[in-house]
Amino acid sequence: MPDWIHHPCPPLDRASEAAALARQGELTKPPGALGRLEQLAVRLAAQQGRLKPRVERVCITVFAADHGIAARGVSAFPQAVTAEMVRNFARGGAAINVLARQLGATLEVVNLGTVTPIGPLAQVVDATIAPGCGDIGLGPAMQVPQFAAALQAGRAAVERALAAGTELFIAGEMGIGNTTAAAALGAALLDLPAAALVGPGTGLDADGVVHKCRLIEGALALHASARDPLEQLRRLSGFELAALTGAYLHAAQRGLPVLVDGFICSVAALAAVRIQPAVSDWLHLSHASAEPGHAAICTALGLTPLLDLGLRLGEGSGAALALPLLRLACDLHGQMATFAEAQVSDRQPV
Amino acid sequence: MPDWIHHPCPPLDRASEAAALARQGELTKPPGALGRLEQLAVRLAAQQGRLKPRVERVCITVFAADHGIAARGVSAFPQAVTAEMVRNFARGGAAINVLARQLGATLEVVNLGTVTPIGPLAQVVDATIAPGCGDIGLGPAMQVPQFAAALQAGRAAVERALAAGTELFIAGEMGIGNTTAAAALGAALLDLPAAALVGPGTGLDADGVVHKCRLIEGALALHASARDPLEQLRRLSGFELAALTGAYLHAAQRGLPVLVDGFICSVAALAAVRIQPAVSDWLHLSHASAEPGHAAICTALGLTPLLDLGLRLGEGSGAALALPLLRLACDLHGQMATFAEAQVSDRQPV
Repeated sequence: MPDWIHHPCPPLDRASEAAALARQGELTKPPGALGRLEQLAVRLAAQQGRLKPRVERVCITVFAADHGIAARGVSAFPQAVTAEMVRNFARGGAAINVLARQLGATLEVVNLGTVTPIGPLAQVVDATIAPGCGDIGLGPAMQVPQFAAALQAGRAAVERALAAGTELFIAGEMGIGNTTAAAALGAALLDLPAAALVGPGTGLDADGVVHKCRLIEGALALHASARDPLEQLRRLSGFELAALTGAYLHAAQRGLPVLVDGFICSVAALAAVRIQPAVSDWLHLSHASAEPGHAAICTALGLTPLLDLGLRLGEGSGAALALPLLRLACDLHGQMATFAEAQVSDRQPV
Repeated sequence: MPDWIHHPCPPLDRASEAAALARQGELTKPPGALGRLEQLAVRLAAQQGRLKPRVERVCITVFAADHGIAARGVSAFPQAVTAEMVRNFARGGAAINVLARQLGATLEVVNLGTVTPIGPLAQVVDATIAPGCGDIGLGPAMQVPQFAAALQAGRAAVERALAAGTELFIAGEMGIGNTTAAAALGAALLDLPAAALVGPGTGLDADGVVHKCRLIEGALALHASARDPLEQLRRLSGFELAALTGAYLHAAQRGLPVLVDGFICSVAALAAVRIQPAVSDWLHLSHASAEPGHAAICTALGLTPLLDLGLRLGEGSGAALALPLLRLACDLHGQMATFAEAQVSDRQPV
């Protein structure tokens, strides 16, 4: 297993946090009137080590891969859609393309291996490990070298984002079948039955969800001996989930705040936190997914999502949609006048 | 009472709505995967009468005024703050200034009358009616000509916004004591006791809330004979609340979609809907306020806020914070590729 996984994360900057908190009390508004946006600005100050944080430069990386278990009918869409959507990303037609353009964010797609081969494409980094991971109902998702490569692909994406000057990292995923893998990994990490984490994904009907649940139960039974989160990740996830976990771990190690997308990304983030609890200091949850298992993952992370709009698309789209709130929280924090500057009277003495 | 209040609202464009709904089903995502953003885009299409709605050009109008009842200690802040904040708006230091700048929205402040006189100020329209409205615990908030002037000030703001090409209207308010007036009006409109709508506003302690509640009960008893919503608005609100209601009525009459801010704006919107139920077709609720009475108002409006971030600032700030979601909903709706364009496989036949 690669050594870097266990490198420590830096501590939050408590001096910047205290200064930011004091500034919030001086701005021309009743104390606490900006609610969670105040806490967001203060946490970003602690993460970025500056009184006035900024999240203008943002890199979004979408990790794509196929899943062995998808051949057994766990999705409303055919498996070919993973590769087709990678081509859609390259042509700029997917939801995350539209959002990245509008937000002025950099978008990169990392292909970790699809069943249908994909040739070289603009904006797509070829990091193919194999044409899809193993079927978690029959064996481990990844062999040890494959797992190391997937983790490393996440680490490398964060390094590229940092080289581009990113102030916040967003990851997304694309992979037909990956709510099945995420539910299996989430259930293993939380020691819960499959039924607690399973959901319709892209749109399974009730019978489909029952079938998916049975397959996850089988995978959980097969890998029940794995109790270490890293080993659970290797056995019960997939290339893009392992890359997400590697990316979150490395972002935290580099002191880079992360805005986590929905169900699948949150499960990968939980794996990262189980591997290194300090990763949690660097995470923001963007939205509450419509996938029913997400709530249990958010609770385990101890974090509350910013948005709750019934989203269940993936690709990093929910995180992108929450980005304006982080930006505006920073703008309000950095640009509002203080009571003294504006000569506005503060609260009356009680 | 001015005739224009009862002019009818145009119907929604059901053909554009149907076309937008059909387009949502063709975009490269699982059906419904963008949750409320899909409904938002479809509703905006119905309101704007075009397949691809846009909310790029946005005008924000903040209505400011003082309240007679504020002299009796219903706020954590002194009454002078209303005028001081109008000056802060003019100098660009308030939260709504920062948000309008970052969002590229036009900001206008309409001064309807403050206790402390304000001279001419940049970006502030002087529409002074009186130095604050009447104390609702002692008599009506407004005399009939004052009420007509306040409603007309809202109408005029919408006309200016339309002349500037606005595609969406946002209103905000500033007035020390106006959660007291809004709670009184909301309770009268919903026939609920004061306790169901009262809250801490800018930060009253528990004793302060009890005092505020007793004052609202007194005002409700004094004006109990008023059963017509227009008369309840005249007696139990204030200049800025009546201007908000006038603005919402006129925006609906002109077929202009409205993004409603928090507690006070929602009460004014409810008054508009009680005067003309069709106004409801033109409203979007931006956020769930931390003010506890807001939930009952949202329920009565039959609308669900987009954000829930514990905001309780006013000024239109919550609506401004939700604006990026409306814009991105339009961008996704208008710019994503269809399955056919992107050659992506649709769902498997069940």
